[in-house]
Amino acid sequence: MITAEPRAAAPRVRIAGVEPCVDCGRYAAKRVAGDPVEVAAVVVVDGHEQVRAELRFRRVGAQRWERASMTPSEHDVDRYVASFVPDETGTWEFSVSAWIDAAATWRDELRRKFEAGQNDLSAELAEGAALLEIDVSDIAEVETALATTDTVEVSRAALARALTVTVEPERAAFGAWYELFPRSFGGFDGVAKVLPELVDLGFDVVYLPPIHPIGRTNRKGRNGSLTTTADDPGSPWAIGAAEGGHDAVHPDLGTLADFDRLVARAHDVGIAIALDFALQCSPDHPWLREHPDWFAWRPDGSIKYAENPPKRYQDIVNFRFDGPDADSLWTALLGVVEHWVAHGVRIFRVDNPHTKPFAFWEWLIAAVHAEHPDVVFLAEAFTRPAAMSTLAKLGFSQSYTYFTWRNTRAELTEYLEQLSTQADWFRPNFFVNTPDILHEYLQHGGRPAFEARAVLAATLSPSWGMYSGFERGLNTPVRDGSEEYLDSEKYEIHEGAVGGELSPLIRRLNEIRRSSGVFRRLDNVTFVDTANDALVAYVKGGGHDVVIVCVNLDPYANATGLLTLPDTLDLPLGFVATDLLTGVEYGWHVGDNFVQLGPGGAHVLAVR
Amino acid sequence: MITAEPRAAAPRVRIAGVEPCVDCGRYAAKRVAGDPVEVAAVVVVDGHEQVRAELRFRRVGAQRWERASMTPSEHDVDRYVASFVPDETGTWEFSVSAWIDAAATWRDELRRKFEAGQNDLSAELAEGAALLEIDVSDIAEVETALATTDTVEVSRAALARALTVTVEPERAAFGAWYELFPRSFGGFDGVAKVLPELVDLGFDVVYLPPIHPIGRTNRKGRNGSLTTTADDPGSPWAIGAAEGGHDAVHPDLGTLADFDRLVARAHDVGIAIALDFALQCSPDHPWLREHPDWFAWRPDGSIKYAENPPKRYQDIVNFRFDGPDADSLWTALLGVVEHWVAHGVRIFRVDNPHTKPFAFWEWLIAAVHAEHPDVVFLAEAFTRPAAMSTLAKLGFSQSYTYFTWRNTRAELTEYLEQLSTQADWFRPNFFVNTPDILHEYLQHGGRPAFEARAVLAATLSPSWGMYSGFERGLNTPVRDGSEEYLDSEKYEIHEGAVGGELSPLIRRLNEIRRSSGVFRRLDNVTFVDTANDALVAYVKGGGHDVVIVCVNLDPYANATGLLTLPDTLDLPLGFVATDLLTGVEYGWHVGDNFVQLGPGGAHVLAVR
Repeated sequence: MITAEPRAAAPRVRIAGVEPCVDCGRYAAKRVAGDPVEVAAVVVVDGHEQVRAELRFRRVGAQRWERASMTPSEHDVDRYVASFVPDETGTWEFSVSAWIDAAATWRDELRRKFEAGQNDLSAELAEGAALLEIDVSDIAEVETALATTDTVEVSRAALARALTVTVEPERAAFGAWYELFPRSFGGFDGVAKVLPELVDLGFDVVYLPPIHPIGRTNRKGRNGSLTTTADDPGSPWAIGAAEGGHDAVHPDLGTLADFDRLVARAHDVGIAIALDFALQCSPDHPWLREHPDWFAWRPDGSIKYAENPPKRYQDIVNFRFDGPDADSLWTALLGVVEHWVAHGVRIFRVDNPHTKPFAFWEWLIAAVHAEHPDVVFLAEAFTRPAAMSTLAKLGFSQSYTYFTWRNTRAELTEYLEQLSTQADWFRPNFFVNTPDILHEYLQHGGRPAFEARAVLAATLSPSWGMYSGFERGLNTPVRDGSEEYLDSEKYEIHEGAVGGELSPLIRRLNEIRRSSGVFRRLDNVTFVDTANDALVAYVKGGGHDVVIVCVNLDPYANATGLLTLPDTLDLPLGFVATDLLTGVEYGWHVGDNFVQLGPGGAHVLAVR
Repeated sequence: MITAEPRAAAPRVRIAGVEPCVDCGRYAAKRVAGDPVEVAAVVVVDGHEQVRAELRFRRVGAQRWERASMTPSEHDVDRYVASFVPDETGTWEFSVSAWIDAAATWRDELRRKFEAGQNDLSAELAEGAALLEIDVSDIAEVETALATTDTVEVSRAALARALTVTVEPERAAFGAWYELFPRSFGGFDGVAKVLPELVDLGFDVVYLPPIHPIGRTNRKGRNGSLTTTADDPGSPWAIGAAEGGHDAVHPDLGTLADFDRLVARAHDVGIAIALDFALQCSPDHPWLREHPDWFAWRPDGSIKYAENPPKRYQDIVNFRFDGPDADSLWTALLGVVEHWVAHGVRIFRVDNPHTKPFAFWEWLIAAVHAEHPDVVFLAEAFTRPAAMSTLAKLGFSQSYTYFTWRNTRAELTEYLEQLSTQADWFRPNFFVNTPDILHEYLQHGGRPAFEARAVLAATLSPSWGMYSGFERGLNTPVRDGSEEYLDSEKYEIHEGAVGGELSPLIRRLNEIRRSSGVFRRLDNVTFVDTANDALVAYVKGGGHDVVIVCVNLDPYANATGLLTLPDTLDLPLGFVATDLLTGVEYGWHVGDNFVQLGPGGAHVLAVR
């Protein structure tokens, strides 16, 4: 004998596939304050009932849900859509509810019978009268009945599990970054002096490598040498010395008061200061003495240096995140972020986050965001795609990428397609170079290569960045086959400068990026044929806001090709294409368009 | 001041994307007892640690989990795979756990240092000795250390949420069905007589439309007429009369004892009896009197007939599933299934399940499966794809489809691609015709059309079926433009017969289907080019078990084309293709193969 408790009160409607949804709701999707969040859900009901679906949303902590009616989407009547605009940063939640509208169902049936010429509708009208509590009893009143707009909810409404969205400031998703070593510019005051030049070039963020005291034990010399002279300043990433650790500033850069003045000045001119958050210590860091349990010691009492065999980093040691005193370590590291937030910093570029526990980052970012939802974290992780994706899911606002190593048309196309599938949580920041990465394409290709890469980064990714010197075309490696710079600024002090031969292009690219919404998204890109592998071409956006980009990836030779605009893009059949880089106008059309570009040259064409 | 409780004890490893997974685990995936369940999961860890991943599985209710080691998949090192074979029907659950193996991590580091020529590895060896709890002198040699195989689990293992799999008998996924009206064969005894013929044709299931007493009120006459003569037997779907309801048998078919004998006979000859489960009543059904609260009454006291305006079904009324006495209704309907299960029935073809609440079906199927996991439910729902998909997700073993209305190459290709994406939960049963559906392709195309459709259904879908008469090419519609048969058996008694001109083809197709595992799956199909839209061609399977099918969809003319086998299919460059329908052998190869087929003709080619 089968025994089972009936569940007749269960909702008649089912809701599935609610989007945006990251890993079944385990993580939040990411959006920007002021931008709409498009929500979709498949709503099904048995029979021929008419359903209504509603989007509910609120900032987490708000007392009441706000609501918006959902409507069937154009291409799939079972998929209901609506959107909401989160107007402030923080964690928002949303859900979908749906129910049977008995009045609409009754009207739908009545209308179908009426249109089929059924004469006796008195029973139907009586049903409706009872349902709507109105008086309609006569066939003459069918039109009146059909004109009612009442809603009568029957059976329990279905309610989907709430999902979350992390709503961040614009800078989390869109910006132009410039990296410089403050010691090469005369410290904080010197950096403050070049801020107007960076603003003039269109940069939104200045990122400073670690500004803390630098250890002396095992300090690295020029070009990473294991021997040093008294003058060698050491790598800024070897954090901590007698003068202090992660919450101190290097005396040569100025005082904390000088730093505060730099932050204030940056705020005044409209650029943000980003600090490095590098969780490692020089052997001289005060914490080794104060908190030995925060570090891993060998059986022989020696400390284990950071290493990734065969590579060795003798000037730094790692924290032990799961040691006996882990709680106080985690709390102290959170305190470091809080310290710099108190000094006005809102952006952190996090060094090698993939070598620290995922749970640590998820905890730290959530804790910071609970108080300061406008703080942005950039993950500098070059590791397995699944680990990079996980860091993005668990909270990093944006991420370094493999862009520097994607130089051919096929590589770029494949990579952008991969990144597009992760757009709900992974926001790339395309750096064209870093102090660690001078790609051989730049080493060999010279200025045309630099130009091509700048156009690609600035137009493909909502966030892009460069390390100082790129605009002057610096490209000498420490040796053949290395991606390290010769006389790397990581180990010595340079004569810092902003600007160079590429300044006009960079300034114009940053202007163009601000002129159209298409550059604020990554997943609105369609790669198109060019009949020449040296030419990569893509269409950004759609509808009324479209930009067509074509870049000659060959830094040595002219390239000609046919750029094919397919009719699936909804472009005008013929149109004037204005090159935003040069102002030149071309007559273009759907179909094949002849293109000729010099070495590293590019079109960035606005469609009128 | 930010305050947050550190979570240093959290697992270091994260598990994501565990498959198979239907709607984030809301529903169970479907598999067949004895077939392997392939499980995959993305496993990520911070840093360079070595992880181990393990699959856990058990039949729900079993005390202990069984375990299997997972290994990185060939194309993606972060995706771990393993499989298990559920050996009995019922609900199974599985999960993935993963952890850091400190010993493997230590060996990996040691090996990398050793290979890089690092000389002093004594500190590393001492670390390993402590880790493995062995004497350091025992691994004083690096080679000895690297040869250790110990596993040391550190940090908490991550454990993914358990997911479920409904494991069903083979017939849930694979079978050939034959539908017949027992009253046209002289009742249960007559049906028993033709069972050997059906077995000879290779059928696995005989499906009988409702076998219950038929109502007299508003009984429909020939061709669905609203007027009847005394001889009209009525539609079997107008269930219930003075003689009884859903648990009774129509006196003209025999007794319940006769039915039991039919079931026993079917079991003996190796074919299964499937009953119709149609949840509706004729106005004469005893339940209207006994349980008025199970039905919807109008304000004027009349009962509402079933209708889908402008269509009206005056001979049946629907249940009210959410009425005041819903619990007793649900329990009674469950009792009907239990009644027939007690009489040996293990397959139910469910009539119009989409017009009853989803929650009812989910509840009923789960309740039946809890006691009888070998019971199979086929959903006869022709409605919105999202609703058909939902019925499959919530428990129906297999589903009727739009196959009858997919007749061109483009339609077939698109439809199979859609179905392939749902293979984890939606199992199609491709009926070539039903008492309600005589497609115009068959009406006009004659025997070649019947042959083409039989080959398509039998080779594309693991389950296929036909309604008696198909094998004789019956194809006269009640009127032009209708899909109803003339003199439909739904409303009158025919002279039943099994077999006809298509018997040899049907017999051979069912033999072929049993000869290769490729016909047991739907999602192993690759459509290939033929250079002629009249020719549809597809490759089933891969590796050592491959069948190539090509069908001429044109029932009126010969068709020639070039069947292109792409090199991505891993076929031998050249091979002998044996036509399983004719025995003829062809020399075929990767690339273009000339094909010529008569009207409705087909190749079903085995690759040697």
